[in-house]
Amino acid sequence: MIEGDFVEMNRTSVSNIIQKGGTILKSARSKEFRTPEGRQKAAENLKQQGIDGLIAIGGDGTLAGAAVFYDEHQIPLVGCPGTIDNDLFGTDETIGFDTALNTAIENIDKIRDTADAHDRLFLVEVMGRDAGFIALNSGIGGGAEMVLVPETLSDIKKVKSYIHSLMSEQHRSSIVVVAEGDELGGATRISEELRADEAFAEIDLRVCILGHTQRGGSPTARDRVLACRLGVSAVEALLDGHANVMVGLIDNRIRLTPSRNVYSRKKSINFELLGLTTLLS
Amino acid sequence: MIEGDFVEMNRTSVSNIIQKGGTILKSARSKEFRTPEGRQKAAENLKQQGIDGLIAIGGDGTLAGAAVFYDEHQIPLVGCPGTIDNDLFGTDETIGFDTALNTAIENIDKIRDTADAHDRLFLVEVMGRDAGFIALNSGIGGGAEMVLVPETLSDIKKVKSYIHSLMSEQHRSSIVVVAEGDELGGATRISEELRADEAFAEIDLRVCILGHTQRGGSPTARDRVLACRLGVSAVEALLDGHANVMVGLIDNRIRLTPSRNVYSRKKSINFELLGLTTLLS
Amino acid sequence: MIEGDFVEMNRTSVSNIIQKGGTILKSARSKEFRTPEGRQKAAENLKQQGIDGLIAIGGDGTLAGAAVFYDEHQIPLVGCPGTIDNDLFGTDETIGFDTALNTAIENIDKIRDTADAHDRLFLVEVMGRDAGFIALNSGIGGGAEMVLVPETLSDIKKVKSYIHSLMSEQHRSSIVVVAEGDELGGATRISEELRADEAFAEIDLRVCILGHTQRGGSPTARDRVLACRLGVSAVEALLDGHANVMVGLIDNRIRLTPSRNVYSRKKSINFELLGLTTLLS
Amino acid sequence: MIEGDFVEMNRTSVSNIIQKGGTILKSARSKEFRTPEGRQKAAENLKQQGIDGLIAIGGDGTLAGAAVFYDEHQIPLVGCPGTIDNDLFGTDETIGFDTALNTAIENIDKIRDTADAHDRLFLVEVMGRDAGFIALNSGIGGGAEMVLVPETLSDIKKVKSYIHSLMSEQHRSSIVVVAEGDELGGATRISEELRADEAFAEIDLRVCILGHTQRGGSPTARDRVLACRLGVSAVEALLDGHANVMVGLIDNRIRLTPSRNVYSRKKSINFELLGLTTLLS
Repeated sequence: MIEGDFVEMNRTSVSNIIQKGGTILKSARSKEFRTPEGRQKAAENLKQQGIDGLIAIGGDGTLAGAAVFYDEHQIPLVGCPGTIDNDLFGTDETIGFDTALNTAIENIDKIRDTADAHDRLFLVEVMGRDAGFIALNSGIGGGAEMVLVPETLSDIKKVKSYIHSLMSEQHRSSIVVVAEGDELGGATRISEELRADEAFAEIDLRVCILGHTQRGGSPTARDRVLACRLGVSAVEALLDGHANVMVGLIDNRIRLTPSRNVYSRKKSINFELLGLTTLLS
Repeated sequence: MIEGDFVEMNRTSVSNIIQKGGTILKSARSKEFRTPEGRQKAAENLKQQGIDGLIAIGGDGTLAGAAVFYDEHQIPLVGCPGTIDNDLFGTDETIGFDTALNTAIENIDKIRDTADAHDRLFLVEVMGRDAGFIALNSGIGGGAEMVLVPETLSDIKKVKSYIHSLMSEQHRSSIVVVAEGDELGGATRISEELRADEAFAEIDLRVCILGHTQRGGSPTARDRVLACRLGVSAVEALLDGHANVMVGLIDNRIRLTPSRNVYSRKKSINFELLGLTTLLS
Repeated sequence: MIEGDFVEMNRTSVSNIIQKGGTILKSARSKEFRTPEGRQKAAENLKQQGIDGLIAIGGDGTLAGAAVFYDEHQIPLVGCPGTIDNDLFGTDETIGFDTALNTAIENIDKIRDTADAHDRLFLVEVMGRDAGFIALNSGIGGGAEMVLVPETLSDIKKVKSYIHSLMSEQHRSSIVVVAEGDELGGATRISEELRADEAFAEIDLRVCILGHTQRGGSPTARDRVLACRLGVSAVEALLDGHANVMVGLIDNRIRLTPSRNVYSRKKSINFELLGLTTLLS
Repeated sequence: MIEGDFVEMNRTSVSNIIQKGGTILKSARSKEFRTPEGRQKAAENLKQQGIDGLIAIGGDGTLAGAAVFYDEHQIPLVGCPGTIDNDLFGTDETIGFDTALNTAIENIDKIRDTADAHDRLFLVEVMGRDAGFIALNSGIGGGAEMVLVPETLSDIKKVKSYIHSLMSEQHRSSIVVVAEGDELGGATRISEELRADEAFAEIDLRVCILGHTQRGGSPTARDRVLACRLGVSAVEALLDGHANVMVGLIDNRIRLTPSRNVYSRKKSINFELLGLTTLLS
């Protein structure tokens, strides 16, 4: 938009890409777009091209930026929730979440395969700076003994005593899933806490940071269908004259949410699931 | 139940199985249970063992049988929806559906990789005797040009002319996903119809029947979390004194449905998705 | 070559394709190339473009055609073994074989997951018109009870009695892997033979034809490394002045084989492996 | 062996495990076995049980320990090469290597999917304390721009200037694969070196440590077939009266190597492959 580099696309432009991870648009964050001048330039380029509608796909930052752009230039704009973190108000699921979740669980499965020795503790860090959706769901789906998420205050003393009792009673390997954004710090930080405590002297402690692998990979069935539904709905919303809204899926139905709500409000984690992690461990 | 072969299980009985396909119970359909005598024997064995609650996991047949058993013997019984077909009233999703769907799509992706030649038509048959949930979702997620499901009447003439126009205009390979239970017959039957029509003489026609591979494999994230939620809810339902109901997930919330409704009513396919298949092809 | 449609490629032309199945060249079989006139046209186009070397990637047919082309027009040509069937003399492994093999085994794993009932027999047909490499290796790797390959004469009576004794003694599900090109016919043909025999009346018989899925999918580690090694070797062979040869991997070393040997001689199956199938079943 | 805990196994003991990662034996390293007393106890237990042959599966440590045990107690013993590192003399491939390699490459593929921004550098650390087999092969198979292995001396200055020129010329993301045992230190250490150099100030540097996920997962086709061949050969070697040898695969043929050679000699990395990494980057 800023460089005035536009390409017209039709249905063949997207043939044979549905199974691919990453982006074919090669769009990335732009410093210039953060300045009024940059956005001004983008708006002029759009008008010059006769483009009278925009669809912005991304997370918090993208949609907040899009809203600012709309407020300044009133070019009709509809947001589409695309982030692996699933932390967007206005949709039960974001595009990318289910794929990241399955990648995390496949990795946890592989880690569990190696847990054949006694008294081994794996601290597995998954993505989620501000939200524990991946940690919570991959913890349940991966059969973890404990899950640490940013949404709940974790007391390191309680964490220690829980893990310790767990390992001393069942004497087999345990897996703890930690969201990178947990207020106790990530897996590395927590491992230092444990290593500093001689109660854990006998325990073979391993830190696994799944990292960027969660951002790629061929999309899952659910993410593909979700992306098709939301993509079509975003176009329809534009055609229906909507602007400055985000399309989302709420209780299996397409819903529109004012952009401002998306980044001003916080989506709550599912506390029924949170209860399961302690119940099932 | 009939052979009186009972094993007490605790949490360690299920350790390290969450990633596995298939069943560790090795339970299978029983002819004897279809007779009043067989069910009588089962009921006596249960009472003798002091078992005062049952959880039945399965599809239509299992839950119908469970209801009959309850009517005859009043042993509290809660059903859990487990079938890849997703055709159970009382839950938006059944345990196994998401896994089968991803398997179908992974296979369609591989088939598409081979679609490098011109004028090749793949008829891919997926599971679904009475329901098109797998076909519909794998068709969208697999980028198929057309989807045939039992829920809608398909006119072979229209199917032919649609495929033919599709292939003559774009001159590349096309994929058609067919549910095994489509009223036109499965992929093999349809391929015979097309081969009998000289308009398709030039077209290289391939039939792929995905078959049993859709019934196995390591469960996806979604299926694991769903199974944990429904399993726990089924136990809680029993403890709360419920009987002859099925636990399900409706609009992301746990719901109980009277068993009789589950097999007497038909779950509708999502017509918004059905619309997408023609819109996106 | 025939249409004179040439594109110059450099290292960026192949960036980010190493993980993809299928071909980016979109080249496919050409009827015209089978005629002397077609090949004449191709040769003229090459000369006009100043192209003084060719690398042909494919199986039997491709390499035979390439040899004919070389005999007629003496344009230096080096073959690269690319077929999932692994049936090329002059190389221990062909590009694509390891990927197809892993796909076959993943599918057999999923089928085995469903083998929870007693007395169920799966006839799994894998690719291999003239060769049993996929059947033999996927049979061992998939834990099949029996493997039928074109390289050995199978007596239907012996096959029947072996399967029957197997199933009556161990009373659990069995998997038989059949190469599509077995002289008894594929899995469908064999299932008819068994169904016609009342000794199998009690046995629940299932036919699974893995089909085209074996031709696609992201290449395995081994196939990627093999393709890199052979591709580089093919270029080096051309630069070294070789022509009408195929590059291959024999005992882990790059070797050149005269094209004529490649399609005139038959690569033997590994009889040590064949022994394992009966030993381990 | 030390605790005298023996279980007789037959062919059904291993039914339906061929697709599983990890071990069903739950055997793990034993401190006691490192003492002469511990080995004495083990030998007595074996003799008491009338066990007159041992097969030891593992890497360097396991096979060295096994050799010591044989020297002290002369119980016929055959080794089987099982390690993901592939660093055992006496076999071209070890059981587990191909699986670990494919896991590493699948992860690198996912990382590459995220490499959509300019000037991003991924330092991917794979396993290999003393050997670069995984790094070398996953680097080629993953399309890495550079590979750092313990077998070759890497000059940090050269590494820096190579990466820098690479990134400034092509202005897209680059991937460098580092073996954990590289003498420059792992990925974290190298990233510190780069961050300390203002020439890399503009470059977005990401460290990914694949870690334990490489040790698990369902075995690949190649690993399954290799394990079957070596397992059978190990038994046959014992029956043929061999002792204190390791079975291995050399140039596609089963070979026996005296145990002492296995851990006293170093297997060379493939320098043809090493050449490819620079040639293809």
